[in-house]
Amino acid sequence: MIRGALTFMNNNDIYLDNNATTRLCDEAYEAMQPYQQEYFGNPNSLHNTGRIAHRALAQSMHELYQLFGAEDRDDIIITSCATEGNNSVLMSVYYQFIHTGKKKRILSTQVEHPSVAHTLEFLESLGAVVEFIPVNEEGLVTPEALRAMMSDDVALVSVMWANNETGLLFPIKELASVAHEHGALFHSDGVQAIGKTPVDLSDAGVDFFTFSAHKFHGPKGIGGLFIRGKTQFTPLFHGGAQMGGRRSGTVAIPLVVGMTVALRVAVANLEQNIIKMAHLRDKLERGLLQLADITIVGKDSPRTPNTSLISFKGVEGEACLWDLNERGIAASTGSACSSADLQANPTFRAMKISADLEHTGIRFSLCRYTTEEEIDRTIEAVHAIVARLREISIAY
Amino acid sequence: MIRGALTFMNNNDIYLDNNATTRLCDEAYEAMQPYQQEYFGNPNSLHNTGRIAHRALAQSMHELYQLFGAEDRDDIIITSCATEGNNSVLMSVYYQFIHTGKKKRILSTQVEHPSVAHTLEFLESLGAVVEFIPVNEEGLVTPEALRAMMSDDVALVSVMWANNETGLLFPIKELASVAHEHGALFHSDGVQAIGKTPVDLSDAGVDFFTFSAHKFHGPKGIGGLFIRGKTQFTPLFHGGAQMGGRRSGTVAIPLVVGMTVALRVAVANLEQNIIKMAHLRDKLERGLLQLADITIVGKDSPRTPNTSLISFKGVEGEACLWDLNERGIAASTGSACSSADLQANPTFRAMKISADLEHTGIRFSLCRYTTEEEIDRTIEAVHAIVARLREISIAY
Ligand SMILES: Cc1ncc(COP(=O)(O)O)c(C=O)c1O
Ligand SMILES: Cc1ncc(COP(=O)(O)O)c(C=O)c1O
Repeated sequence: MIRGALTFMNNNDIYLDNNATTRLCDEAYEAMQPYQQEYFGNPNSLHNTGRIAHRALAQSMHELYQLFGAEDRDDIIITSCATEGNNSVLMSVYYQFIHTGKKKRILSTQVEHPSVAHTLEFLESLGAVVEFIPVNEEGLVTPEALRAMMSDDVALVSVMWANNETGLLFPIKELASVAHEHGALFHSDGVQAIGKTPVDLSDAGVDFFTFSAHKFHGPKGIGGLFIRGKTQFTPLFHGGAQMGGRRSGTVAIPLVVGMTVALRVAVANLEQNIIKMAHLRDKLERGLLQLADITIVGKDSPRTPNTSLISFKGVEGEACLWDLNERGIAASTGSACSSADLQANPTFRAMKISADLEHTGIRFSLCRYTTEEEIDRTIEAVHAIVARLREISIAY
Repeated sequence: MIRGALTFMNNNDIYLDNNATTRLCDEAYEAMQPYQQEYFGNPNSLHNTGRIAHRALAQSMHELYQLFGAEDRDDIIITSCATEGNNSVLMSVYYQFIHTGKKKRILSTQVEHPSVAHTLEFLESLGAVVEFIPVNEEGLVTPEALRAMMSDDVALVSVMWANNETGLLFPIKELASVAHEHGALFHSDGVQAIGKTPVDLSDAGVDFFTFSAHKFHGPKGIGGLFIRGKTQFTPLFHGGAQMGGRRSGTVAIPLVVGMTVALRVAVANLEQNIIKMAHLRDKLERGLLQLADITIVGKDSPRTPNTSLISFKGVEGEACLWDLNERGIAASTGSACSSADLQANPTFRAMKISADLEHTGIRFSLCRYTTEEEIDRTIEAVHAIVARLREISIAY
């Protein structure tokens, strides 16, 4: 173990990569503490140590239902992450409808996260017909575009609530209603929506909704899946029948407690946080628009208030990221999942943004803790970096 | 939130339910701290905050390989629990062999944990042929019994390393070798083995091995799956291609670090801990054998040193558990997964233990922190409880 190595590397001072993961908030951290070592029981055990854990679970579940606007007849099951949730939904629909021959098609978009996109590829290999609702040039999916593709053999429509790369918001309620007109189920990957836009599942009309705690200042290793009312469901994990048999495996109480508190805090000051983040995001964009030849993706479309995907003509994204890092600023060239392998940005491709822009995107994703001073420093840094990189660019 | 409620209920003073879950050890707790709020990055991110997380992951993985005796060409993938690991193995074998029509059968035992048993039922519904190797009256599976059932159409043999209810140890190396003679893969659910018996995967010959951190004083919500060498594998989670594409989803660094340290501690003093636990377990059993009409399941068979499943004739298990709880002692009537629903013990059934004993089992499961004084108090308590319950029993 080269433990000492940590001391040679510091965290970035300015963290603008909150769509990749967020810092655990103090409230969640505190709430988790008693369950780490003191109340460590298995909620399925009948003795006191187990019953304390069981009570914490029951209280957390109760609060999760309230915070999401879920009803008693709905289900929220605890998962390890949204990747698990998304795979669970898609595989369940496969078993319920495709495998049984009841329906054939699944509709989605080309801007979904890989945990949806790659699972759909897998379903295709099992015989499902997967089709993509076209995204318009603003990167949006319209109810009309969906309606034009619907028929009774569609088992599921899956459209994310907010895009991780661009922050673009999709008209979930309208899309869900179109899906339902044709007897299809509707799933929304809600990972990037929570803490950034109101999420009321009693109103949205979705049948499945997935979330991951570490994206809203909760702990890593935990998430959830909302399942409406009597929607049939085939579990991804079979076993000890936890979560009413829909997700087996010992429930991680410290993580459930932490996730619940993180959600409580995220929802409690949502309006204020949205205003604050939007203000700083707008300031960042205004500051950067003083540079020539930059494009802010989806600038005039409905977006989450924290995300800004910006292309700097002639500036290679990776190089810019590197220089930002040297100055203590953490950003991203796209989703954390794919940023390590330098592949062209799939969102850009779906939005038909020209090929030479594909490699020039930088994503800044703010959080409720981002400060004005951090944004000022970022604007200054980007100006200097872009000037330098354009100077040495052969393409610019 | 009825937060105050916690103060009305105390943890059990004496915790003898370590096969259900264990207390997070101090070493793991300490090691996790820097990664909770300070080094909170996503290991896939390219900036410093991400690279610190990435380094912690790489160091942890390196140590996990060493501690399990895995080789470079082997794979260890991080999961959320053993239930996930077991489902992953069985579904992968289904996709690789059964779904493709290459093989037909999967062999297992009737004493597997529900995360294996119920997944096998699911595979049967998908067309797999599942057969059980008979367990002899000591509850053991012999290589001969397996050999008698083998043929070239067996895709997988799955036998747990140690049973969660009885502690009985299975001859894994010999069973794996019989499976391999016939070209089948071999999986062992190792959840109850770690920290209780040596586990050396370079020697055992298993192709798949699953574990869950919370069973060896690690954090809840994390586990792992060992996959030997070039064994083909279809992932259960598709997505961002973490873990070399074999298990997508953002990796929970605090949990990985905690699991690694917990394993390090469990393995470091294994021999000493085995001697200590076996001594206390034997003392407990000697003390209880002074009561008339008790049966210790598998007493003379190879067992983990911490587990004692005992049947007290005429004493209903749930009633005994309740009285123990009142005296501050946590035990179990069987696995935590099923102890809430009072069903007859499946291990007893497989071992052909007579029906009236089915409801009379109490499992005591010790850990390396169990003390002599706790065992003395437990013996005393059980004597009093059994006397009282037999007095009021109509069956005794
Ligand atoms: C939109 C979206 N969906 C799903 C995920 C997957 O989340 P996790 O890695 O926590 O499973 C992410 C995060 O990477 C995301 O941004
Ligand atoms: C033998 C065995 N396998 C698998 C499991 C499942 O572990 P987890 O609940 O952590 O997924 C358990 C624990 O309940 C077990 O005892």
